[in-house]
Amino acid sequence: MVSSKDVAKHAGVSQTTVSRVLNTPELVKKPTLDKVMKAINQLNYIPNAHARSLVQNKTNTIALLSGPLHNPFFVDTTSAIINYANEMGYRVNVQYVNDEKLPEAYATAFENRVDGIILSCILIDDPIFDKLKQMDIPFITYNRKHKNNENFVEIDNFEAGYLSAKHIIELGHKTIAWVGGPLSVSTFHNRYSGFLQAMEDYQLPLSESYIFNTDTSKQEITHAFKQLMNLEHRPTAICTGADSLALNLIDNAISENIIVPKDLSIIGIDNVDLSHHGLIQLTTAGSISEQNLGYLAISELIEMIENRKNCCIKITEPVKIFNRITTRRLEN
Amino acid sequence: MVSSKDVAKHAGVSQTTVSRVLNTPELVKKPTLDKVMKAINQLNYIPNAHARSLVQNKTNTIALLSGPLHNPFFVDTTSAIINYANEMGYRVNVQYVNDEKLPEAYATAFENRVDGIILSCILIDDPIFDKLKQMDIPFITYNRKHKNNENFVEIDNFEAGYLSAKHIIELGHKTIAWVGGPLSVSTFHNRYSGFLQAMEDYQLPLSESYIFNTDTSKQEITHAFKQLMNLEHRPTAICTGADSLALNLIDNAISENIIVPKDLSIIGIDNVDLSHHGLIQLTTAGSISEQNLGYLAISELIEMIENRKNCCIKITEPVKIFNRITTRRLEN
Repeated sequence: MVSSKDVAKHAGVSQTTVSRVLNTPELVKKPTLDKVMKAINQLNYIPNAHARSLVQNKTNTIALLSGPLHNPFFVDTTSAIINYANEMGYRVNVQYVNDEKLPEAYATAFENRVDGIILSCILIDDPIFDKLKQMDIPFITYNRKHKNNENFVEIDNFEAGYLSAKHIIELGHKTIAWVGGPLSVSTFHNRYSGFLQAMEDYQLPLSESYIFNTDTSKQEITHAFKQLMNLEHRPTAICTGADSLALNLIDNAISENIIVPKDLSIIGIDNVDLSHHGLIQLTTAGSISEQNLGYLAISELIEMIENRKNCCIKITEPVKIFNRITTRRLEN
Repeated sequence: MVSSKDVAKHAGVSQTTVSRVLNTPELVKKPTLDKVMKAINQLNYIPNAHARSLVQNKTNTIALLSGPLHNPFFVDTTSAIINYANEMGYRVNVQYVNDEKLPEAYATAFENRVDGIILSCILIDDPIFDKLKQMDIPFITYNRKHKNNENFVEIDNFEAGYLSAKHIIELGHKTIAWVGGPLSVSTFHNRYSGFLQAMEDYQLPLSESYIFNTDTSKQEITHAFKQLMNLEHRPTAICTGADSLALNLIDNAISENIIVPKDLSIIGIDNVDLSHHGLIQLTTAGSISEQNLGYLAISELIEMIENRKNCCIKITEPVKIFNRITTRRLEN
């Protein structure tokens, strides 16, 4: 299919000039206009992208279904995904998806034809997976994955949960709490399992009242924090299912004049960009690779689109601890 | 890909009937409707919105040209814009625009038909403004505005610059620096003018070596910080053109063991959500309204689209100081 780039080359002008001819011909000088129009005619270029998509059966559009931006993980990944896709010549339709409104989000995303779908919001047991397979459109999930174990890019979530608990345990903590997210989501499920495994391996007792698998809303996290602080034996450390939860808990601690890490150690998972900031310096577990999961997923997706493959990316990135200042050794 | 022709064949009806089911189901008799819907579900047909848009002359798509997400102002506004637009039934094509690549960004955004355009990246003198007017598509700028003074939602940037300088001056500071952004941008231009006016009103001297109007990149801000700290008379306070710059400078200060606000007061402008966090607590100037500029702009834009008005929103939100912990009174 002829592109405006081809027209520009053929006419010996810039792509911006071609775009000006198409959109505001009245502002283009006659000789330039003639040159571009001649190239358009000779190459049979169809300017309207909608018309073009009907002919090409390609829309150059990707649907992104992301978690909300108040979670800094999705700030990093949304940036990476959109910037990379734009560079590769794709537009990105973005939706920030609330887990409670998944069916609506899917319906909207699929009503419009797209060349590929990149989504972070899939549930372990999500019926959308089969539908995506049947639709025969390349798709990839990042962060979360489906139980079918196909087309995903994730970090080693079990290991992240394990390492963060191990880090805390080896600092001498014994009264340790967990604040995570819904177990219907692979990320939180596997991070929690890793945490439990470490507690078991180190033979530390764990009672129900120290475990909160929240819906990740500010209210529920704050509620969990208050419950934990009201326990007779307060935890000396909290392992969390994500940096966003850890940041929320630190904010809660500050409002209650509880000093992190003097009174309470807190560790995250994800190593979001924000966690490096001098004012934050969050100790966390995250990918060893410098490329974020959004970047990895979009580059795989675009390769799938361009090579007409619909299957079967399976990427699990190894993790390590980033030791900063929100955890401390417990003195006896 | 399944087409409406396939659906028609499978259901034993005409293509026109399929089209009527998709566009005006209320006018189709129940048995026909059921037959067609059954075929649609069996074949996993995705009604082609592109084809429909050619007929309807409406795409239900909005183009968003936003500043980059490493500026937390655009985290808040992008969220608000996309969530509101989605709720109102619009898809949003997002681009994160680098000021140096404006022409490319505009070309991509306009190549595809959209119902409206919402952009934060316009320059005071940007030729795109006339083009947008000629294109006869509703558009609105948020944060920044064009010198034509039309179709914008902003905060009172001059007043924000003035109030932040006044806040610092009234705390007893006399050696005050400015770190802002490019003066080709209304936001930075007007914030800087407000700062200068306050310095003049309070008869404080100001030398060139205390003024940095950067390109807002991390490198240039860090460079400005180092220059300021190398001055014989270090500033005791820095007024900044945006919270993102203030947060960058605080990060620089921490790396150099300079304590904010003990050694150095820093004030932002924007009052981004992140500035409230217990670990940040940035003193800043921002809108009195709780609704962010992205929300205000998208709600105006969608009203313009739906009422077929292309003109002339002019909204300037009043501002105030949010006094937190990054500035302090200078003892004599």
